[in-house]
Amino acid sequence: MNYILTTECTDDVGLIAKITNLCFEHTLNITRNNEFVDTAGQRFFMRTELTGQPSDNFLTQLRQQLPSGAKVTMHGEEKTKVVLLATKEAHCLGGVLLKQFEQALNIEILAVVANYPDLAPLVEGFGVPYHFISHEGLSRAEHDKAVGDLVESYKPDIIGLAKYMRILSPEFVARFNNRIINIHHSFLPAFIGAKPYHQAFERGVKIIGATAHFVNDELDEGPIIAQNVTQVSHADTAQAMAKMGRDIEKTVFCKALQLASEHKVFINDNKTVVFS
Amino acid sequence: MNYILTTECTDDVGLIAKITNLCFEHTLNITRNNEFVDTAGQRFFMRTELTGQPSDNFLTQLRQQLPSGAKVTMHGEEKTKVVLLATKEAHCLGGVLLKQFEQALNIEILAVVANYPDLAPLVEGFGVPYHFISHEGLSRAEHDKAVGDLVESYKPDIIGLAKYMRILSPEFVARFNNRIINIHHSFLPAFIGAKPYHQAFERGVKIIGATAHFVNDELDEGPIIAQNVTQVSHADTAQAMAKMGRDIEKTVFCKALQLASEHKVFINDNKTVVFS
Amino acid sequence: MNYILTTECTDDVGLIAKITNLCFEHTLNITRNNEFVDTAGQRFFMRTELTGQPSDNFLTQLRQQLPSGAKVTMHGEEKTKVVLLATKEAHCLGGVLLKQFEQALNIEILAVVANYPDLAPLVEGFGVPYHFISHEGLSRAEHDKAVGDLVESYKPDIIGLAKYMRILSPEFVARFNNRIINIHHSFLPAFIGAKPYHQAFERGVKIIGATAHFVNDELDEGPIIAQNVTQVSHADTAQAMAKMGRDIEKTVFCKALQLASEHKVFINDNKTVVFS
Amino acid sequence: MNYILTTECTDDVGLIAKITNLCFEHTLNITRNNEFVDTAGQRFFMRTELTGQPSDNFLTQLRQQLPSGAKVTMHGEEKTKVVLLATKEAHCLGGVLLKQFEQALNIEILAVVANYPDLAPLVEGFGVPYHFISHEGLSRAEHDKAVGDLVESYKPDIIGLAKYMRILSPEFVARFNNRIINIHHSFLPAFIGAKPYHQAFERGVKIIGATAHFVNDELDEGPIIAQNVTQVSHADTAQAMAKMGRDIEKTVFCKALQLASEHKVFINDNKTVVFS
Repeated sequence: MNYILTTECTDDVGLIAKITNLCFEHTLNITRNNEFVDTAGQRFFMRTELTGQPSDNFLTQLRQQLPSGAKVTMHGEEKTKVVLLATKEAHCLGGVLLKQFEQALNIEILAVVANYPDLAPLVEGFGVPYHFISHEGLSRAEHDKAVGDLVESYKPDIIGLAKYMRILSPEFVARFNNRIINIHHSFLPAFIGAKPYHQAFERGVKIIGATAHFVNDELDEGPIIAQNVTQVSHADTAQAMAKMGRDIEKTVFCKALQLASEHKVFINDNKTVVFS
Repeated sequence: MNYILTTECTDDVGLIAKITNLCFEHTLNITRNNEFVDTAGQRFFMRTELTGQPSDNFLTQLRQQLPSGAKVTMHGEEKTKVVLLATKEAHCLGGVLLKQFEQALNIEILAVVANYPDLAPLVEGFGVPYHFISHEGLSRAEHDKAVGDLVESYKPDIIGLAKYMRILSPEFVARFNNRIINIHHSFLPAFIGAKPYHQAFERGVKIIGATAHFVNDELDEGPIIAQNVTQVSHADTAQAMAKMGRDIEKTVFCKALQLASEHKVFINDNKTVVFS
Repeated sequence: MNYILTTECTDDVGLIAKITNLCFEHTLNITRNNEFVDTAGQRFFMRTELTGQPSDNFLTQLRQQLPSGAKVTMHGEEKTKVVLLATKEAHCLGGVLLKQFEQALNIEILAVVANYPDLAPLVEGFGVPYHFISHEGLSRAEHDKAVGDLVESYKPDIIGLAKYMRILSPEFVARFNNRIINIHHSFLPAFIGAKPYHQAFERGVKIIGATAHFVNDELDEGPIIAQNVTQVSHADTAQAMAKMGRDIEKTVFCKALQLASEHKVFINDNKTVVFS
Repeated sequence: MNYILTTECTDDVGLIAKITNLCFEHTLNITRNNEFVDTAGQRFFMRTELTGQPSDNFLTQLRQQLPSGAKVTMHGEEKTKVVLLATKEAHCLGGVLLKQFEQALNIEILAVVANYPDLAPLVEGFGVPYHFISHEGLSRAEHDKAVGDLVESYKPDIIGLAKYMRILSPEFVARFNNRIINIHHSFLPAFIGAKPYHQAFERGVKIIGATAHFVNDELDEGPIIAQNVTQVSHADTAQAMAKMGRDIEKTVFCKALQLASEHKVFINDNKTVVFS
């Protein structure tokens, strides 16, 4: 059996030795290991791929040897459970659905929830449940409550905002704290806010991009997981940039979900640690 | 109305002036123009975006002014008609279907023909006809004949081989001469032939790629339309490379179809001219 | 003989036909042509590579046929004359000097002017005059006057700011209006101002970049000529990003000078048109 | 003090635990660690960044705990010593010299040896000794002997072939076994041999590249260290590709020397392990 052990704690001397020793004692063979120490923040992060059969008390012993407050998790080969939120645009949503169909991502898309009915045929074509919850006639709090209740009923590990064009209430963000991944259609922190491709066109940039990030209460300010870019020229209108940008958005959003599903992403205050 | 005029002929002095003059006389306004002269081969290629209303005799007059044998075509805003051939792999096929669904490509996928039934649900989910023609019990000539007859019945502009894992007979290639676009899973001319990712792994390269090309009678030797690459490392197995490569294949295949549908690709002997 | 004709004027119908016709009448053969119409701004830009021997009145006739106010220039094969301004950092300056030595750029570096003496050995090793004008004891106006007088004595086409770490006075900018190219060590408009790599580190971005732009009176707001980026990770400190960034800065700065020297860059209000 | 420990041996269970334990016992703090197991070849590779003060017997104890035949090395902060071989082309040679001048590489260039005198001014401008050993009138064996004796007198860690346009004799290769890094002007294994840019032009590829590799007895077949690529088009002649390629060659060659100087490159049979 293959396992992934993730460890996150206050930094201390000898942490790698302690963890790898305990693995050795439990005859868990390390096939891949990544670690990072944030020296300024005094935080230690480690991701360890293991083969073997961990006994019941492995994690208990490990926690005893680590600084108090350590977060230690052992993942088997189960897929990461994802609910996607969408509005009307197909590219990010379809990109992830197609990747799941290709078996290219270690995720299971449990459902799609959207505030418009448009994307139902696409989603249902992939055999995934589609829930349409209109925002019309509802306050933001009411709509977020309805969407949140439905999302929660699926018990997802990750909520992916596949171009969900609504600003989430702080209550919604808090409810799924550190589990919401958004795709923003600019190379953050450039062009925060609305209509980034129009902003990019007006500024005359030669490269545009997209950013996947965790959502927190400040718009477009959450920890960045992945970014990518593409060249543009003076001949590209804002509309052309938007069209080119959709490819980047799709790529970056899928990449962020893939990284999260492989347990390679750790939140470190307002940043991420992303192991390769 | 918007039009695209493509011109291809033996090179001569003053060709641009002749063509642009005639456009001016016919009150066709040039909004974008690209041209290329292959000085060694003495060939002239031009692609002109126009607005206006071309009269019936515009093309006739144009041909009279150009060297004999000139190929001149005026395209309106109609979509490029495509039939896709597939086997079992979903990524290139699904990539194009999704792009069509997003309205990101100026193509209309008329049908998919496959030698296995596996991809029917994917294709039919997008509302596209799926034809399964097994190769079992048929000679290559018989199978190619059956597939070719079906393809021809759709009168496509382009036949896209979306990971169609069969070698086409010279008869099939000749039947759809200069209209078949293949995606090869290597950065040609490296790793021609079978199992390119295994070859790449064995050689220890640090970059892998994919190549879209027109198909001619020599395996993997047709004119190249588009290529792209991605970084790999010692830690990537041949299987991991294949997985990473599928993303590149999907991107490059869609790119080649997009370029062809925008009338930006010209065949120039064993190479292409691809306007940006 | 090879020539490059650049045309810039108010847009009108038939401009390409007029220009290419006149070339044909003067037996100037067009080997490459690029044009762009800014439809919102109603501006026409064209760059034409020619072979032949233009007669004296070619440009006069051309101007008569174009809308009033047209800027028309014919460039022969002479090199673009450049004066570089520097401070203490070697990478952008050395990058351009090396490229000149390799004969990879169509430029002639007339001199380097710096406000520190540190880079004299590097510059003089390439046989280029080095002028040290300390800013100590001088007001900004006095220093800019002294530097400007020296620069002007060389009659350069382009002034390249090769990591010149001083803010230029509006008088200096006006004196060399539209001829000053700066390299900024961020992917503008992200991280405008001081210490962009520290800003990038604090924000936790996954890609950093550099931007070459014309200088106007607003800091880091001039028309962008070229940009490029590179991937970074959580493990890269601000210092590591700065080091990686220097490679991008060097590349982008050389690219901008190359484009300018090939007469491929036009200023279009607060943006550029850059032909490929 | 900072150290880099490199370990290479037959794979076994518990190796990471053994090594990190011993570090802990010797109060060596691990600040960064990379390891890789080639499961097919049963080889273990590890690179460990340490702070602390290793005692005399640390390496002795380490070797005792590892499988027999283990290669273990502790590097302090000393620079990697490099001798560069060149012919007439300046770009790779100048690129490395400039990088050393910028203090961007952890290398010390001891000398340049060339079979032409042309590059002496460039090299001496950077204060580096230049030795001209003409191949005229000498057999290959004689010339290689003369060059090899001179190179050996400098006791370099790495011999960099900065576009050294001569085929090395097996004797020379054996003499500096696993220490010679070459830059090849193609994206290997495409276009092995002479005139790769002409080959690339003839084939009509859309991307060209360069490859840095260790030299062994088979031409262009040594273990690959780094590769990079750039887009080209139909409009690029073989000469234009060569010019664009020189930038990639320079970048890749510098990258390979940087990786080697940071002790991140291990030879694994006919491939490399390159830690990031």
